[in-house]
Amino acid sequence: MSILVVGSVALDTIRTPFGYVCEALGGSAVYFSVAARFFTDVHLVAVVGRDFPDEHVRFLENRGVDMKGLKKVDGKTFRWEGEYLFDLNEAKTIRTELNVFQDFRPVIPEEYRHADHVFLANIDPELQLEVLKQVKNPSLVACDTMNYWIRGKPQELKNTLKTVDIVFLNEQEARELAGEANLIKAAKYIHALGPSVVVIKRGEYGALLFQNEKIFWAPAYPLETIFDPTGAGDSFAGGFMGYLCRDRHIEKGTYKKGIVYGSIMASFNVEDFSVRRIASVTFADIERRYQEFKNLTSFEDILIQVS
Amino acid sequence: MSILVVGSVALDTIRTPFGYVCEALGGSAVYFSVAARFFTDVHLVAVVGRDFPDEHVRFLENRGVDMKGLKKVDGKTFRWEGEYLFDLNEAKTIRTELNVFQDFRPVIPEEYRHADHVFLANIDPELQLEVLKQVKNPSLVACDTMNYWIRGKPQELKNTLKTVDIVFLNEQEARELAGEANLIKAAKYIHALGPSVVVIKRGEYGALLFQNEKIFWAPAYPLETIFDPTGAGDSFAGGFMGYLCRDRHIEKGTYKKGIVYGSIMASFNVEDFSVRRIASVTFADIERRYQEFKNLTSFEDILIQVS
Repeated sequence: MSILVVGSVALDTIRTPFGYVCEALGGSAVYFSVAARFFTDVHLVAVVGRDFPDEHVRFLENRGVDMKGLKKVDGKTFRWEGEYLFDLNEAKTIRTELNVFQDFRPVIPEEYRHADHVFLANIDPELQLEVLKQVKNPSLVACDTMNYWIRGKPQELKNTLKTVDIVFLNEQEARELAGEANLIKAAKYIHALGPSVVVIKRGEYGALLFQNEKIFWAPAYPLETIFDPTGAGDSFAGGFMGYLCRDRHIEKGTYKKGIVYGSIMASFNVEDFSVRRIASVTFADIERRYQEFKNLTSFEDILIQVS
Repeated sequence: MSILVVGSVALDTIRTPFGYVCEALGGSAVYFSVAARFFTDVHLVAVVGRDFPDEHVRFLENRGVDMKGLKKVDGKTFRWEGEYLFDLNEAKTIRTELNVFQDFRPVIPEEYRHADHVFLANIDPELQLEVLKQVKNPSLVACDTMNYWIRGKPQELKNTLKTVDIVFLNEQEARELAGEANLIKAAKYIHALGPSVVVIKRGEYGALLFQNEKIFWAPAYPLETIFDPTGAGDSFAGGFMGYLCRDRHIEKGTYKKGIVYGSIMASFNVEDFSVRRIASVTFADIERRYQEFKNLTSFEDILIQVS
């Protein structure tokens, strides 16, 4: 079983109340891959410029991410600069330089076209659809998106949604896409657009999973120190999709467990800049946090230790 | 086992996107009592004016709330007028008339002074402390408060907190009281002020229970129609305290279940204006929703039906 991810690879400059990094490894495909790689094989498709440091490519290769789909072209790598204030809920974008990402036309290498699962990270919905035309019968397709496309390319986004099984949205995006303040009604509207599974991310408030007429509520892991929220959504998707890919039989409860593994990977991700923390996590760390999530939400037994 | 509640009895005029009520039965002690009465005996202490309709007193008496502590004095009953816009998260206060509530000096009837549990609803922290001087060794004391007291009477509030076991706060109040944006750190700070249990309410995002160094996360019941959020916090406290009072032995997990029963009572409360919905609920309804909460958060079994 393997996952194909198509998204961005970027150099991020980020300031939070707790520190600063300059041109650190980032991008949706990177956060997704590092998280998903704990569970399954990952093939990455993205584009970078000639200035992209080889050490980052080696770092991802050493983590077992298949980087053959990373195209290096003339020009500069996508750069993002952002700042988080104390509430850490919303990034203030200081500068976005799309650079080579602007002309990204994903070409899926022949050996990736048989991937079982596909994750279309937040890119132009028309490109998401182009990717899907290149792959052969994946068993599960998920996509992410953002307000920029909901407003700018609503019809193209709807065309993409018709063809995917799972959509990841944050709560503002879900409300905007559906034109509906109530999240349950919004999720029903989005279901009707195509995806049989709607995942609504709510940052420090956790996530909701809507599957047909059913719902599951997952907490975010309560952290005393959230160092840098960048990439939380993509590492969440990575944990979710990775877990689903590992568990070949999509049984009752699998999607719910996927949300929990997504929340776990996001919780590690925000504990340091870039992929520093998540890359140093062990399987034992993941399983320990899984048990803590269980204790955190089950109300017929003990409380968990947080300090 | 019985609970003494000291708080407000009010006439509320409320407009939401879904309707309007004029001078409906409201107030913290009312919402608390109606919810707690499902689980235990409730003695109410509050003040109203001569204009307070007898039908409201009879309504509460018929629900089994002990109203001997309701003092009727010359003057007008406390009135609040508010409006909720579509997000329903925050009330816009249009008018507050404290009236007889302004000079409220709670006197606890002799037969209430042996109540096992005491709930000090959101009133002046000096009055909360006066109530505690009148009661004889209650086994559990909880209080609510608000930003108005956190800012206006911080030292008096801290004096009250030193003497209570449980404090209910919403997340903004917790952050303001602790001077700390991170909720886990804020909860630790509040613990150190006295209460061994800190309950942080987060509206549609659920509630967090901090008990010493341990934590529990409860969802809010996902509702398609939230009719009127007024009283949600007090019916939450009523379900929580009522359940704790019913379960004589405070065992492992009891506080966690208390939060769940609190969330259940709050979820019924917001489904209609005033106490209309919560007063018509049956024990079977409560137990059904308890099972739904279990399914909503347990991730090793089935999903729940929401439609």
